[in-house]
Amino acid sequence: MPLPPTVRWADHRLYLLDQTLLPHEVVEVEQHDVAQLVDSIQRLVVRGAPAIGVAGAYGVALAVRDGGDLHEQAALLAGARPTAVNLGWAVQRVVRRGERAVTAGEGLLAALEDEAAAVHREDQAQCEAIGRHGAPLVADGAGVLTHCNAGALATTGIGTALAPLYAAHEQGTPFQVFADETRPLLQGARLTAWELDRAGIDVEVVVDGAAAHLMARGEVGLVVVGADRVAANGDTANKIGTLGVALAAQRFVVPFYVACPSSTIDLATPDGGAITIEERAAAEVTGAAAPAGVGARNPAFDVTPHDLVTGFITDRGILRAPYGVSLAAG
Amino acid sequence: MPLPPTVRWADHRLYLLDQTLLPHEVVEVEQHDVAQLVDSIQRLVVRGAPAIGVAGAYGVALAVRDGGDLHEQAALLAGARPTAVNLGWAVQRVVRRGERAVTAGEGLLAALEDEAAAVHREDQAQCEAIGRHGAPLVADGAGVLTHCNAGALATTGIGTALAPLYAAHEQGTPFQVFADETRPLLQGARLTAWELDRAGIDVEVVVDGAAAHLMARGEVGLVVVGADRVAANGDTANKIGTLGVALAAQRFVVPFYVACPSSTIDLATPDGGAITIEERAAAEVTGAAAPAGVGARNPAFDVTPHDLVTGFITDRGILRAPYGVSLAAG
Repeated sequence: MPLPPTVRWADHRLYLLDQTLLPHEVVEVEQHDVAQLVDSIQRLVVRGAPAIGVAGAYGVALAVRDGGDLHEQAALLAGARPTAVNLGWAVQRVVRRGERAVTAGEGLLAALEDEAAAVHREDQAQCEAIGRHGAPLVADGAGVLTHCNAGALATTGIGTALAPLYAAHEQGTPFQVFADETRPLLQGARLTAWELDRAGIDVEVVVDGAAAHLMARGEVGLVVVGADRVAANGDTANKIGTLGVALAAQRFVVPFYVACPSSTIDLATPDGGAITIEERAAAEVTGAAAPAGVGARNPAFDVTPHDLVTGFITDRGILRAPYGVSLAAG
Repeated sequence: MPLPPTVRWADHRLYLLDQTLLPHEVVEVEQHDVAQLVDSIQRLVVRGAPAIGVAGAYGVALAVRDGGDLHEQAALLAGARPTAVNLGWAVQRVVRRGERAVTAGEGLLAALEDEAAAVHREDQAQCEAIGRHGAPLVADGAGVLTHCNAGALATTGIGTALAPLYAAHEQGTPFQVFADETRPLLQGARLTAWELDRAGIDVEVVVDGAAAHLMARGEVGLVVVGADRVAANGDTANKIGTLGVALAAQRFVVPFYVACPSSTIDLATPDGGAITIEERAAAEVTGAAAPAGVGARNPAFDVTPHDLVTGFITDRGILRAPYGVSLAAG
């Protein structure tokens, strides 16, 4: 059974798969305006840097469809979440196409829809390319560990980190996936486990704290994660906990790859220190477990320094250190 | 308000504070026989290597009180959980006292109760000593990170890892604690946060994956954790996720201390490779989040290699590398 689309634009309407309800309910929700879409992005109804980018791109068309101001609405969309570069990039790209259409006297909505559809198609094609380039890294019988969800559900295609796994599976390579559950919102347990299991790929969930242990015991031959923003020097912002996985991979000599489309590489950000880390509500962490009155810190992302990254699996091929050179050339 | 006792023996009866219900309910449960006690140890009604040791010690008296066979019941108790050394050590110690009593023609039950009470008193005294030795490590205004619960609730005294914090707090040193929530059973969020908050110590909960990020950002000046078994070379088994914390501490040059009573140091175990790691039920991990049919790996402990440990805070003082020498001499 194919996965339902994460983002869908049809008859000038925008629909999102509500990922907060997965894996127990599969529900598509129409987004009626930009305010609702911004809320959906913030609540992680749609999440994953590439999928957010596509949703934001269509969001610009949605705004103009209902007579909203192009630049005002675009600014609201771009600011919905700060860490992923794709959102701002996609929104800006569609806005520029709209500006050109206005200058040329073309229909604005049609131009925005056309550009958003192009962003959408490119995301799908980039996922396929990442899969093609990354599949040879999956050795026969390997244990593959991933963190959070950088799969089909994080994109509009076959994923970023999971794309090489889907491609390898299609080629008949047997392997076993360990999905970090990824607290606090459990994207690994809820989403990665769900989509891999549906595809017939052998997957087991582990608590985030068990990743280092599995590597120490020699059970992991490859780590692949996604990225929300890659700085020019290769420092990588990704879901909180990624840094710990990278440190364990270094210690136990396990290759650690970041998979992302080229659009996630942000040459305007020199290094990880310049990346804004979103802090989310404490209640996501404390939930029902912690005693009343005790607070929490809830950074949603961390930065993995480039020296811990074996390579970047991108739609253009695999980039390796030194990243300053290869990313700029990429 | 003082914490209720984790383990209590009164009028030849054994009572445990049911830690599975904390922080929401504070309930003491009488243990009527060894089978119930073994089940309570396995379900983590009582947990923490030192507290399990004391419970096991009284368990031997409990068995004999009801006419059970000393050695048979002791073997059941000692085998309840495999990783913590204190359980087997305490049970064996009480059994030997019983054997001596039988040989000497003394009353068996009274001898067992007396020895268990000695184990109990020593645990409390060791916690105090760990606090005394460790308190100077807590700098004014420091961020202190701990994993799982090695506090009062893990012992019958003021804890192991948390003992230096209680002692420093009593001395008026201000500091801030980050409690790793510690999946899957959330001992950090449920227990560490609860007992520190009750003591008036500033504590915030973080997901396990956030520990490395906080260290990278310079917010942590000290890491203190407990231990379930320390091998002769200093390799340390502790709650799953400890290894990842230690790797982050090394990377970001944060002192990483293990606090434990001398009885947790097992000179009969040469190194971490010889430590049995308990694997617990997958359902503890998958819970309600993962899709039906997807399994989990659930190792309950990991081993932190000795080179990642800055020092051991014990009742006998702080031991530093090389541990083979200092532990043997300790």
